[in-house]
Amino acid sequence: MNILFTFEPVPYLVEDIENQFPNCTFSYVKRIADEQDKLQDAEIIVTYGEDLTDEQIKRAEKLKWIMVASAGLEKMPFKAIKAKNILVTNAKGIHKVPMAEFTLGLMLQHVKNFTSIKKQEEQQNWSRRLPMSELYGKTVLILGAGAIGGELARLAKAFNMNVIGVNRSGKEVENVDQVLTISAIDDVLNKADFIISVLPSTNETKYLLTDSHFNKMKQSAVFINIGRGDLVDEEVLLKAIQEKKIDHAYLDVFREEPLPKDHQFWSMDGITVTPHISSITKNYQPRALDIFKQNLNTYINKENHFINVIDVEKGY
Amino acid sequence: MNILFTFEPVPYLVEDIENQFPNCTFSYVKRIADEQDKLQDAEIIVTYGEDLTDEQIKRAEKLKWIMVASAGLEKMPFKAIKAKNILVTNAKGIHKVPMAEFTLGLMLQHVKNFTSIKKQEEQQNWSRRLPMSELYGKTVLILGAGAIGGELARLAKAFNMNVIGVNRSGKEVENVDQVLTISAIDDVLNKADFIISVLPSTNETKYLLTDSHFNKMKQSAVFINIGRGDLVDEEVLLKAIQEKKIDHAYLDVFREEPLPKDHQFWSMDGITVTPHISSITKNYQPRALDIFKQNLNTYINKENHFINVIDVEKGY
Repeated sequence: MNILFTFEPVPYLVEDIENQFPNCTFSYVKRIADEQDKLQDAEIIVTYGEDLTDEQIKRAEKLKWIMVASAGLEKMPFKAIKAKNILVTNAKGIHKVPMAEFTLGLMLQHVKNFTSIKKQEEQQNWSRRLPMSELYGKTVLILGAGAIGGELARLAKAFNMNVIGVNRSGKEVENVDQVLTISAIDDVLNKADFIISVLPSTNETKYLLTDSHFNKMKQSAVFINIGRGDLVDEEVLLKAIQEKKIDHAYLDVFREEPLPKDHQFWSMDGITVTPHISSITKNYQPRALDIFKQNLNTYINKENHFINVIDVEKGY
Repeated sequence: MNILFTFEPVPYLVEDIENQFPNCTFSYVKRIADEQDKLQDAEIIVTYGEDLTDEQIKRAEKLKWIMVASAGLEKMPFKAIKAKNILVTNAKGIHKVPMAEFTLGLMLQHVKNFTSIKKQEEQQNWSRRLPMSELYGKTVLILGAGAIGGELARLAKAFNMNVIGVNRSGKEVENVDQVLTISAIDDVLNKADFIISVLPSTNETKYLLTDSHFNKMKQSAVFINIGRGDLVDEEVLLKAIQEKKIDHAYLDVFREEPLPKDHQFWSMDGITVTPHISSITKNYQPRALDIFKQNLNTYINKENHFINVIDVEKGY
């Protein structure tokens, strides 16, 4: 059985997977476009999901299964895949740990005043008169209580926070004290110390947060966006910070990325810019390949309980 | 029943306590030394523990109980207290939440590279090529697995870390995967990604960590000291950082505090200095007074299950 990776995993993971599946033949290529022979022999392709074309799928005569080692599927040639009835799985769910840790890190940085402490350190200034606060007992509102939001909720509960979550159904979610649909958030905005969005960009979420939402937030509130940049119009956000409607915004995602060099966000006191980095982690490949290995066992044993099967019709 | 505070709690706490105990008479003074009459009438004194003298204790004829609204007892006039058989309680245990949150904040700041991200932001530099890591799966060695260390362990487990703890007995502690006595740490130093000390200063802990301990640590290890500054000789620590035996030291406590203005620690790349601030929190007074209120109920009801009773003989 020939398995073709269109990227090269780090050496220890190559060794690990080859040891665990001695009866499979593995190849690793950098540019699939240059590898007609390997493409024709491959029964399984492992890809980051951005390098396959309809043409290649047609030529891959033995191809039965494509493992996308990421969550993004926007560039997958689903038309040809569907025509040949090829199984597609992905690595959905592996972002939740790094993103939740990143967010908790920002929240703790905020309540523990690490930025001010750092400034004092640079001035060799020993002062203990900083307002030090805690996550304990505070309220977090999570917009998007799915896999990532749920992990965030789990950690927030470990810190004894009150957790309010928003999802489409308003149905109960583990570790979330109160679940709402988006239309009901107006009533809780004045309770939230942290408002965190992990929402994707869809027709429903685009420019969802408006002036009127920020008007209802606490003046001490902290807004964190690790979802998508088009959740809030930039002008709405600028106004909220300039008029001190809220205390601080931590932004990891933007309408335009990279954020342009001369953008106001970079240098505003009430805004912290991070370069869409919340999901990046050294553990990315091992986690993606863990899912692959589990599915490869399923495939070899001709079982049918694959993890993260993609609906080729819908594309997700 | 006259209750004398030698400090003034914040207004909402005064209101709260007076409402809950309408049959007690409360006074709040700034300098107990100036208040002979109130001292003579007081049955209960609530103090931060740094303003009482043997002389005052002798004069306080009705005094039955001293509540120390902190954990520090070094300046308490125990000789006179013992002679008059006065009950002493303190606020032990209220430091664990702020100190554990502070430490988790530092750990997340480290693995998420917040200092580098901040530098990039100041240069309006969008770069995602930072080594981003996680707490997940990493190992933390906690020196001092008591109240604070236990809270730290609980949070570390929520982040799916491996937790090794050190205490006097080596006996099992909740949320700690492996408990050792201090003499056994040599065998685990090479496993620890974080070495955190919450140890007090005693004859046993003074200069406990030596060159040979730092020699055994991982080069990527992070050392965090929120206990006492005399755990490690400053020269040992400087050498460990200069010779890159470990990656970073976060120091909240020092042999001499405030840390002198010209001290090398302030400006070393591998050392972060924070001004003995890990336990400071807006929630300090409410937590200390919660303990007092519980004990006051016990006192009024002539029961005997006081929280945090101090052994006047031993002084702790």
